[in-house]
Amino acid sequence: MAQDLRIITTGGTFDKQYDAIRGELTFRESQLPRILSHARSTLTVHLEGPLAIDSLYMTEEQRGEIAEACLHSAEGRIIIIHGTDTMCETAKVIAHHVTDKTVVLTGAMTPYSLEGSDAVFNLGCAISAVQLLDPGVYITMSGRIFSWDNCKKDTSRGIFVPIEG
Amino acid sequence: MAQDLRIITTGGTFDKQYDAIRGELTFRESQLPRILSHARSTLTVHLEGPLAIDSLYMTEEQRGEIAEACLHSAEGRIIIIHGTDTMCETAKVIAHHVTDKTVVLTGAMTPYSLEGSDAVFNLGCAISAVQLLDPGVYITMSGRIFSWDNCKKDTSRGIFVPIEG
Amino acid sequence: MAQDLRIITTGGTFDKQYDAIRGELTFRESQLPRILSHARSTLTVHLEGPLAIDSLYMTEEQRGEIAEACLHSAEGRIIIIHGTDTMCETAKVIAHHVTDKTVVLTGAMTPYSLEGSDAVFNLGCAISAVQLLDPGVYITMSGRIFSWDNCKKDTSRGIFVPIEG
Amino acid sequence: MAQDLRIITTGGTFDKQYDAIRGELTFRESQLPRILSHARSTLTVHLEGPLAIDSLYMTEEQRGEIAEACLHSAEGRIIIIHGTDTMCETAKVIAHHVTDKTVVLTGAMTPYSLEGSDAVFNLGCAISAVQLLDPGVYITMSGRIFSWDNCKKDTSRGIFVPIEG
Repeated sequence: MAQDLRIITTGGTFDKQYDAIRGELTFRESQLPRILSHARSTLTVHLEGPLAIDSLYMTEEQRGEIAEACLHSAEGRIIIIHGTDTMCETAKVIAHHVTDKTVVLTGAMTPYSLEGSDAVFNLGCAISAVQLLDPGVYITMSGRIFSWDNCKKDTSRGIFVPIEG
Repeated sequence: MAQDLRIITTGGTFDKQYDAIRGELTFRESQLPRILSHARSTLTVHLEGPLAIDSLYMTEEQRGEIAEACLHSAEGRIIIIHGTDTMCETAKVIAHHVTDKTVVLTGAMTPYSLEGSDAVFNLGCAISAVQLLDPGVYITMSGRIFSWDNCKKDTSRGIFVPIEG
Repeated sequence: MAQDLRIITTGGTFDKQYDAIRGELTFRESQLPRILSHARSTLTVHLEGPLAIDSLYMTEEQRGEIAEACLHSAEGRIIIIHGTDTMCETAKVIAHHVTDKTVVLTGAMTPYSLEGSDAVFNLGCAISAVQLLDPGVYITMSGRIFSWDNCKKDTSRGIFVPIEG
Repeated sequence: MAQDLRIITTGGTFDKQYDAIRGELTFRESQLPRILSHARSTLTVHLEGPLAIDSLYMTEEQRGEIAEACLHSAEGRIIIIHGTDTMCETAKVIAHHVTDKTVVLTGAMTPYSLEGSDAVFNLGCAISAVQLLDPGVYITMSGRIFSWDNCKKDTSRGIFVPIEG
């Protein structure tokens, strides 16, 4: 069942690391290679990191770039690591451009480098989902698998829920 | 897509914790509730912990008990946390008894409580797989999804591989 | 050599925790009880948490309150967990008020709850220093022990250094 | 107050790491360089690792080697990372050979690489103690500072206590 995957990192809380000098969470190199190594994953994963930003500040142009990256991906199964705040908006843009690939967006409410993070769990959810789902655009958060057009972030509770309750 | 799940913990490396007095890894209460809380999972999960043993010492009778627990489960989607050494044997026993439910076995090569563990990633893989797969018995390890009858542990490398290369 | 200690927490990076909903590091209950438990410390420690703030925003009045807390402490050996940015200023205020007690200020450049934190190491340094030093006001950071009047933060490198190079 | 230090690692629980293939805690390269880096220590530390063993299996000859290493140390302030089970025996051997240096032994009840470890705290305690104490042989465990001849491990509680209650 295993195929080559592409993982596109765009920043977001998932990959934030603490900068001790500036005293804030920021972006450095992606931690995906380390996470996949700890996971003992034997999948062939192609990593691509076009962006490292907070998704609150993502422009429509940048969402277009991510969709382009999906279109150009040699692999038909793609995971996108994305900030949670506008994950659903980016999913929608991708869905309008990419129809023949399985794309799963995920992210984290707590950065990987912090105690009690949901990042690795969410990545695991995405890894299985992207291998099992038919072409389309999906989100895996809160342990669930959502279609791109039936998902929203409940910002007050820090979870993702279906639009139709 | 979300349904109620059952998670059956049986011990194994996944759930081992360090006993500072005895200086060894051993079993205490399962860490699943804490892991699911960190994961921000909104799934309804029924936890059941009939066993807390090293799978090397699991008897055929105990494998039968796990299969029984699957048969009696009110939930049709079941994850089993299991030691890696005989995960495939237990999967086989379950497959011979349980035909109308989706059962996914997973575990860990490094305990959850240790740095660099694969436990949470593997659980995430199982959580998506159990929601997406048709009835049958599966194993999610090494980032892959295996059918119970096409999976073995490569003990020298600490990964799971298909039987047919 | 062991006596009762008082630990006064005032906030600072040491005790910051991630708020997943707000997406930022903030203050919740102090993590000192958990840290001392993991440390297997058998010292009798009296914890007091008058403040939970970023030391950049600490007022002179608040520094006075901390000095008051030292004066009123029943224990003669006191550790103060403090933000690094104005640790030296608070040390100076305490030194002008408290002369018959051993007071050691420490903190962290990276919060306890983050990977690669210096918090627990710094606390260990303070715990020994407060037990061994004569009355006076000191700072333990960067593995070193400074007198309050010969210490400054090198903000560009995130370390503490003596004023007289 | 800062001088050059020597840290001599001998193994023990402090430095144990999990071997996922063998499923047990074992010794690999010492984690001291990483720990000191996270600690943001600016001390000049000379690391020496003559042994990597469980202290239960330490021979009198090996204790002699550690004492020799102390005698030959160019630095007058030495920390020894040691298993807890026979830390007091090694301290005694060193005390009989080394009289003009400050030697502090420490270790851990829970390995550094495990959640809830006491290793970093104990190292911090040793770092301050070795800088502040007069020549002699000491142990820092359980947050306390012991003279070598007034210290024993309470194996049932996993703490160190004075011999004279």
